[in-house]
Amino acid sequence: MTISKISKLAVAGGTIASMLSAPAFAQDAAPAVTPDVAYIFNTLLFLIGGFLVMWMAAGFAMLEAGLVRSKNVSMQSLKNIALFSIAGIMYWLVGYNLMYTGVDGGYIGSIGTYGFDPVGLEGADSAALLDTGYSTASDWFFQMVFVATAASIVSGTLAERIKLWPFLLFTVILTGFIYPIAGSWQWGAGWLSEMGFSDFAGSTLVHSVGGWAALAGAVLLGARTGKYDAAGRVSPMPGSNIPLATLGTFILWLGWFGFNGASQLAMGTISDVSDVSRIFANTNIAAAAGVVTTIVLLQLLYKKVDVTMVLNGALAGLVAITAEPLAPAVWQAIVIGAVGGAIVVFTVPVLDKLKIDDVVGAIPVHLFAGIWGTIIVPWTNSSASFGTQFIGIIAYGVFTLVASFIVWFIIKAVIGLRASAEDEMMGLDKAEVGVEAYPEFRS
Amino acid sequence: MTISKISKLAVAGGTIASMLSAPAFAQDAAPAVTPDVAYIFNTLLFLIGGFLVMWMAAGFAMLEAGLVRSKNVSMQSLKNIALFSIAGIMYWLVGYNLMYTGVDGGYIGSIGTYGFDPVGLEGADSAALLDTGYSTASDWFFQMVFVATAASIVSGTLAERIKLWPFLLFTVILTGFIYPIAGSWQWGAGWLSEMGFSDFAGSTLVHSVGGWAALAGAVLLGARTGKYDAAGRVSPMPGSNIPLATLGTFILWLGWFGFNGASQLAMGTISDVSDVSRIFANTNIAAAAGVVTTIVLLQLLYKKVDVTMVLNGALAGLVAITAEPLAPAVWQAIVIGAVGGAIVVFTVPVLDKLKIDDVVGAIPVHLFAGIWGTIIVPWTNSSASFGTQFIGIIAYGVFTLVASFIVWFIIKAVIGLRASAEDEMMGLDKAEVGVEAYPEFRS
Amino acid sequence: MTISKISKLAVAGGTIASMLSAPAFAQDAAPAVTPDVAYIFNTLLFLIGGFLVMWMAAGFAMLEAGLVRSKNVSMQSLKNIALFSIAGIMYWLVGYNLMYTGVDGGYIGSIGTYGFDPVGLEGADSAALLDTGYSTASDWFFQMVFVATAASIVSGTLAERIKLWPFLLFTVILTGFIYPIAGSWQWGAGWLSEMGFSDFAGSTLVHSVGGWAALAGAVLLGARTGKYDAAGRVSPMPGSNIPLATLGTFILWLGWFGFNGASQLAMGTISDVSDVSRIFANTNIAAAAGVVTTIVLLQLLYKKVDVTMVLNGALAGLVAITAEPLAPAVWQAIVIGAVGGAIVVFTVPVLDKLKIDDVVGAIPVHLFAGIWGTIIVPWTNSSASFGTQFIGIIAYGVFTLVASFIVWFIIKAVIGLRASAEDEMMGLDKAEVGVEAYPEFRS
Repeated sequence: MTISKISKLAVAGGTIASMLSAPAFAQDAAPAVTPDVAYIFNTLLFLIGGFLVMWMAAGFAMLEAGLVRSKNVSMQSLKNIALFSIAGIMYWLVGYNLMYTGVDGGYIGSIGTYGFDPVGLEGADSAALLDTGYSTASDWFFQMVFVATAASIVSGTLAERIKLWPFLLFTVILTGFIYPIAGSWQWGAGWLSEMGFSDFAGSTLVHSVGGWAALAGAVLLGARTGKYDAAGRVSPMPGSNIPLATLGTFILWLGWFGFNGASQLAMGTISDVSDVSRIFANTNIAAAAGVVTTIVLLQLLYKKVDVTMVLNGALAGLVAITAEPLAPAVWQAIVIGAVGGAIVVFTVPVLDKLKIDDVVGAIPVHLFAGIWGTIIVPWTNSSASFGTQFIGIIAYGVFTLVASFIVWFIIKAVIGLRASAEDEMMGLDKAEVGVEAYPEFRS
Repeated sequence: MTISKISKLAVAGGTIASMLSAPAFAQDAAPAVTPDVAYIFNTLLFLIGGFLVMWMAAGFAMLEAGLVRSKNVSMQSLKNIALFSIAGIMYWLVGYNLMYTGVDGGYIGSIGTYGFDPVGLEGADSAALLDTGYSTASDWFFQMVFVATAASIVSGTLAERIKLWPFLLFTVILTGFIYPIAGSWQWGAGWLSEMGFSDFAGSTLVHSVGGWAALAGAVLLGARTGKYDAAGRVSPMPGSNIPLATLGTFILWLGWFGFNGASQLAMGTISDVSDVSRIFANTNIAAAAGVVTTIVLLQLLYKKVDVTMVLNGALAGLVAITAEPLAPAVWQAIVIGAVGGAIVVFTVPVLDKLKIDDVVGAIPVHLFAGIWGTIIVPWTNSSASFGTQFIGIIAYGVFTLVASFIVWFIIKAVIGLRASAEDEMMGLDKAEVGVEAYPEFRS
Repeated sequence: MTISKISKLAVAGGTIASMLSAPAFAQDAAPAVTPDVAYIFNTLLFLIGGFLVMWMAAGFAMLEAGLVRSKNVSMQSLKNIALFSIAGIMYWLVGYNLMYTGVDGGYIGSIGTYGFDPVGLEGADSAALLDTGYSTASDWFFQMVFVATAASIVSGTLAERIKLWPFLLFTVILTGFIYPIAGSWQWGAGWLSEMGFSDFAGSTLVHSVGGWAALAGAVLLGARTGKYDAAGRVSPMPGSNIPLATLGTFILWLGWFGFNGASQLAMGTISDVSDVSRIFANTNIAAAAGVVTTIVLLQLLYKKVDVTMVLNGALAGLVAITAEPLAPAVWQAIVIGAVGGAIVVFTVPVLDKLKIDDVVGAIPVHLFAGIWGTIIVPWTNSSASFGTQFIGIIAYGVFTLVASFIVWFIIKAVIGLRASAEDEMMGLDKAEVGVEAYPEFRS
C-alpha cells in the first residue's frame, strides 16, 4: 500500500514474469493462477471498479441537485454531466500521459493522446500484454473516472453563482493538466512516490486536489448574494430536495467500493482479492462510523439531527479512509471514519465564519477529511512516515491552490466568473439553461 | 439448496481439499479450476453480491421517502442511512460471531468482534485461506448487508410517528442480537439447519424477521393520528413522491440479484456459476410475475391500477422466490412470484381492517410473502418438507415477535416510542431533523 | 465484430473444443485458461452485463418520469415497471426461441418456451456445458434485458396520451414477436447475418426497432392535445423533474457499459477481456462527445444550453457507438458520438415541424442516431460494407414499421389507443392509476 500504483503493478508484472520463467511452470504442476487468468481478473477489477466510480458522477449530480435551491437545479444537473464528459475527453487527449508516462521520479509526464491495445490480440501478439498484467484500456477507464471525481467537488462548492462557461473552462484545465500533473508526483512514480508518500486511493490526490481547487474558486468568486451580511450573520439557504441528496450519498457510498477496492489494482492472486475484501469492509465501516459520530454530535450540540450534515458525515468517513483502506484493523477504520465525521460537524461553521460559501460542504468533506486521512496513514501503515505525509499534503496544497488560483484569475479577467446579480436572483436555470427544474412545483 | 450456507461451504471446501490431495493435481493434467482461482471467483461473488445488496439500502430509503408524506421525508432519509451504519458496526462488534461461530446445532453462537484475514498473505501463509475457499472479509461484507435489509423493513412500517432515537436503539438490538441469534439457527448450522429447514437466501431469516419485528413495533406504537377513525374508516395518506418510490423498487430489484444470486456462495465451478445464472433468471421472472398479477388484479377489483401496489407486487414476488430461487422451473418461479403479488393485493386491506398502520406495506410484502415463499419450498425442492418448513416459520415468528415486543416495550417504558401529537402534526422533519425535505414545494 | 453473436460464440466454442482435444492439454504445460475457467468468466460477463442492462429499465423510468408533466408521472412509472415485467415473461414464453433457435440463415426461429440448464450439474454431465462455453440461463438473462430496452423507447414517445392497456398489449407483441423475429435475422444467424450485416450491440436491432415501433404509434395516436395549433406553432410542455431525468440519463450511461461491453459475449481470454475494455472506453467517450457537441451547438444556436437536449445528446452518442464500439480508435469514437449529439439538436425541431409528438425525444435519440451508428460501421470495421448496412437498416425499418403499424391499428380498432380528452386534461394519473405522483406539490 505504500508502493505507488505504478510500482505496485510493476511488482505484479514481475510476479507474472517470474511465473512464466520459473521451472515450475514448465513442469508437472500447474501454477495456482496462470498469467492469462490473472490478466483477466486484474482487468475485470478495473472494469467493475471503473463502472462503480463512473456511477459516482451520478452521485455528485444528485447530491448537488438536492442541496441547491430549486432555481439552480437544472444548471447543477448540466454542470455535472458536462464535467464528466470533459474529464473523459481531456484525460484521453492529454491527462493520462501527463500523469503516467515517463515521470521517472520527476514532476510531470509526457504530452500525447492515449492509445489502447489493438483489437483482438491473439497468440504471440498477446504475450506482450501479459507483461503489464492487465488491459491498458481498462486501466485508462479506471483512472479517467477518478479525474471526474475531483472535478465534481469543485462543482458543488461553487454552485448557484458561477456561470456555466467559466466553470467548464476551469474543468478543462483541471482535468487535463492540474490533476494529472499533481497525480504524476505519486501515482505516476514521481518525486513524492520516491520519497515514500502514501495515498492508497486518493484522499489527497483526488479529494484534496478537488477541495483546494474549489477553495481557490470560492475565494475569488465570493459568496452567494445574501448568504452573509455585514454583521457576519449567516442566512440559511436550504437545499431543495433532501431525498435526492440522500440518494446521491448512497450512490457515492456504493461507488466508493470501486474507488478504494479497485485501487488494489490487482485481484489475480488470493492475496490480492483478500486485500480487496478487507478494503470493502474497512471502507464501509469508516463511512458507518462517520454517520454515527455525526448523529451523536449533532444531537448533543444542537438537539436536532440535520440530515445533510449526516450525509456529509458519511462522505467524510469515506474520504478519510481512502488514503489507507487496507492496513487498518476494523476498530482503527472506525476511528478514522469517526474523526472524519467529527471534522464535518466542527468545520462547516468555521467556513461560514470565514465567509467562504461552500454550498454543499465539499471543502470540509473532501479537503479537511482528506488531509486527516492522509496524515493518519502512518498510524496503521508502518512504511509511511508522518513527515513525508506532511510534505505531500503541503505540496499538493500549494501546487493546486496556486495553479487553480491562477486559472480562476485568468478566466475571471477574460470572461468573468460570476452570474449577474439579476441572473443570480432569478436563478441560473432560467438565465443560462432555459429550463426550470421543477416548473410545476415552485412555491 | 437444502444444505445450509455453512454446510454448503463445507462441501465446497471438501471439494477443494480433495482437489489438493488428489493425485490428478500432481500429475499431467491441470485441474479444471485450481483452488486459487476458485477462491478468487468465490470471493468476487461475495464482493459483487455484497455491493448489490448494499445498494438495496438506497432502495429502501427511496421507497420509503417516496411513500411517506413530505413532512417526514428528511426523517425517513436519516433513519435509512443511520440504520445501515448501525447494522455495519453492530454486525462487526457482535452479530457475525453470534450467528456463525460455534453454533454447532444449537441456538446461538459466541460473543466477540469479527476478525479479518491478515493483509497481503502470500506463499505458505495463504494455504490456510484455501481451506475456507473464500476471503473472510468478503463473507463478512456479504452477510452484513443482509442484516441491514432486515432493519430497513422496520423503518418503513413505523414511519411518520416513531421518534428517531427509539428507532435507532431498536436497530442496535435487532442488528446486533435478534437477527444474528435467529440466523444462527439455520445459516449458522444451528438446530433448524440440522432438522432440515430450507431457506436459500432469507425469505424467513431476513424478510420475515424484519416483518415480525415491524409488526411488534406497529402494535405497540399505534397508528398515525387520523389514519383510522372510530367507525373503522381509513383515511388515505398518500405518498409524496411516486417516482422516487418507483426508483426504490427498481434499486431493490437490481440488488436482489446479489441477494439471491450470491447466496449460492460459490462460483468457482461451472456448476455453481450455472446455478447462479438460474437464480438470476428465476428471481427476475418471479418479480415480473408479481407485477403482472398485481396489475391484472387491481384492474379487475378496482378499475384503477394503483402503482404503489404494483411496486409492492414486484417486491412480494422477489421476497417469495428468495426461499428457493434455484430449484424451480421457470413456470414454477412465475407461480411463486404471482402468488406473492396476489398476497399484497388481498392483505393490505386486511391490515387496515385490523388497524395496523403499516406505512409502506412492508408487512404484506416481507412477512406474508416471506411465509408463502418459505412454505412452498418443498413443491420444487424435494429435500425440504412442509412440516419442517412450518416449524421453522413458527419458530422464527415466535422468537422474533416476542423478542422484539420485549425490546420495544422496554424502550417505550424508558424513553417512549412515539412523537408528540404536535410533532406528528408538524412533521418529524421540523421536529427532530430541523431540515425540511422540500422547503420550496410545500402546498 | 462482424460475426453475428451466435457465430461468434460458435467460434469461441470451437476454440474451447480444440483446447480440450489438443495434445498440449494432456501434456506438461497447462492451458493458459482452462475451458472451465473460461466458462465461468463468460457466464460472469453475461451476469454483470445483464444486471447493468436491467438497471437501464430504471434509467428509462426516471428519464420519462422526469420529462412528462406531473399529472402523468405515476402512469409513466407504472408503464415502465410493467413493460420490463412483460418483456421478461414474453421473452421466456416465446421470444428467445423465435430469435435464436433454428433460424439457419432464414427469417424466424422456432416456437417454444425457453429451458435452462439443469441444477447443479457435476462431473460428466457438465461436459456438455463446456461446448457452449457459458451458462444458458446467463445468456437468456442477458438477451432478455435487451428486449426491455426496445420496449422502453416506445413508452417514452407515446407518453401522456396513450391509455395503459393498449400500451401493455403492444408491449406483449413487441417483446414476444416483433423484436425477436427481427432480431433473428442478425443475432439469430439469419439472412442478414449471412449477408454480412454488422450491428455489434444493437444500434439497429434494439434502438432503431424501438424507435420505428414508437414512430408507428406516434403517427396513429396523434399529438398531445394543445401541443400543436393549426398555424403550426408548438406549445412547450416542459418536463416536471429535471434532476430525475438527469439521474435516468446517468443510469442509462452506466447500464450501457453492460449493453456494449458484454455484447463481446466472452471474456475468457486476454484478447476478449481486452476488447471488452476497449468497448468500455469507446462507449464512454462517444457519450462524452455527444454531450460536449450538444452543449456547444445549443450555445451557438440558442444562447441557452437546454439540459434536456444535452441529456439526449449523451444518449444519442451512446446509441451511435452501439453498432460498433470495438473497432473505432478513440478519435473515431469521438466523431461517431459527436455526430449523434448533433443529430439530436437538428432533428428534434424537425419532428415538431411534422407534428409528430415525441414526448421525450426518443425517436431522434434511438432511431436517427441508431441509423447513423449503423451506417457508419464500415468506416472503422473493414469487414462491413455500406451497401449491406443500408440493406439492413431498410429491412429493419420496413418490417418494424409495418408490423407495428398493423398491431397498433388493430388495438386502436378494438379497444382504442387514446385516453379521452377529459382524462388527458385531468392527467392519466388520476384517470387510470388513481395515484397522484406528487399530491402535495401541485402548483
